[in-house]
Amino acid sequence: MTDKKWAFEDLEPGLTIPFGEKTVSAEEIIAFARQFDAQPMHLDEEAGKASILGGLAASGWHSCAMFMRMLYDAFLIDSTSQGSPGITDARWKRPVIAGDTLSGQTTVLERRPLKSRPGIGLVTFRHLVTNQRGETVMEMENPIMFRMRATGAAA
Amino acid sequence: MTDKKWAFEDLEPGLTIPFGEKTVSAEEIIAFARQFDAQPMHLDEEAGKASILGGLAASGWHSCAMFMRMLYDAFLIDSTSQGSPGITDARWKRPVIAGDTLSGQTTVLERRPLKSRPGIGLVTFRHLVTNQRGETVMEMENPIMFRMRATGAAA
Repeated sequence: MTDKKWAFEDLEPGLTIPFGEKTVSAEEIIAFARQFDAQPMHLDEEAGKASILGGLAASGWHSCAMFMRMLYDAFLIDSTSQGSPGITDARWKRPVIAGDTLSGQTTVLERRPLKSRPGIGLVTFRHLVTNQRGETVMEMENPIMFRMRATGAAA
Repeated sequence: MTDKKWAFEDLEPGLTIPFGEKTVSAEEIIAFARQFDAQPMHLDEEAGKASILGGLAASGWHSCAMFMRMLYDAFLIDSTSQGSPGITDARWKRPVIAGDTLSGQTTVLERRPLKSRPGIGLVTFRHLVTNQRGETVMEMENPIMFRMRATGAAA
C-alpha cells in the first residue's frame, strides 16, 4: 500500500497534468551557466543578443532542470516515482530568455508493468514547456518508473 | 575568421575528444536536488539506499548538467558553438552515487552545413559518461551548431 496520491495505476494514458508558472531571472540563468554551461550566450546579455538566441538565454540543460522542478511540484512530489531510465528526443524549440515565464503540461502516452521489476511499472510521458506567449520552448518524451499501489511501499 | 580552436571544419566524423574527471560529492547531489529534483533518493542517504538506485544518487538532470560542464571544459570553451536544438535518446544507464568519479568522451558521428543558417553547420555527437569502474552511466546523441571557420565571427 502507499499513501501517495499518484501511483502507477493512477497514471492512465491520456491523463494531462498542468505545470505551475516559473519566471526565469537573469541571475538564475547566469548562476546555472557559471556552474554547468559557461558559454557566452548564457552568461552575458550582450553576448546573448549577438548570438542566434537573441538575448541572455538559459542553457538548454537549465531549461531541463527548471522543467524537472515544475514536474516535481506538479505531481512527482506526491507519487511513487522510482526514477527514470532516460529521455527520448528532447527538443529545445525556442530560447528561454531572462524574464520569460515558463508553464506547460505533461500527458501520459502509455504505460506497462516491468517484468524485470515486480510491483513497478513504466509510464511514458510527453512533456511540453511553454512561455508567456504560449509558444513551445521545449518538448520531450520521458519514461518514469512508478511503484504500483497494490504492492508499493512509500518511496 | 575565428580565433577559436574548434570550428565546424575541425569536427570531423570519427574524432573523439576525452573528458576530464569529475568527482561528485553528496553535498553537490543534495544542493542540485533541493533546487530542481527533490525526490527522496536524491536528497537523503537512507532513502537512496532503500530505493532501486542503491545509494544517495544524483538526479539524472544533475548528471546531464555535470556532463555539460565536462563537455564545455573539454572543447566547447574554445569553440564556435552556437547552441543545440536538442537531445536524442539519452539513457541514464546506471546511478551516479555520491563519491563516484565521472569521466568519458564524445565522438563526432556526422556533420552537415545548415541551409537555413549560412556559415553555420550542425555536428552530431555521441556522448559517453563513465564512472571510476569504467561502467557507462549515461550516453546520448546530441547535435550542436558551430560557426564555420571560413565565415565565423567569434561566438
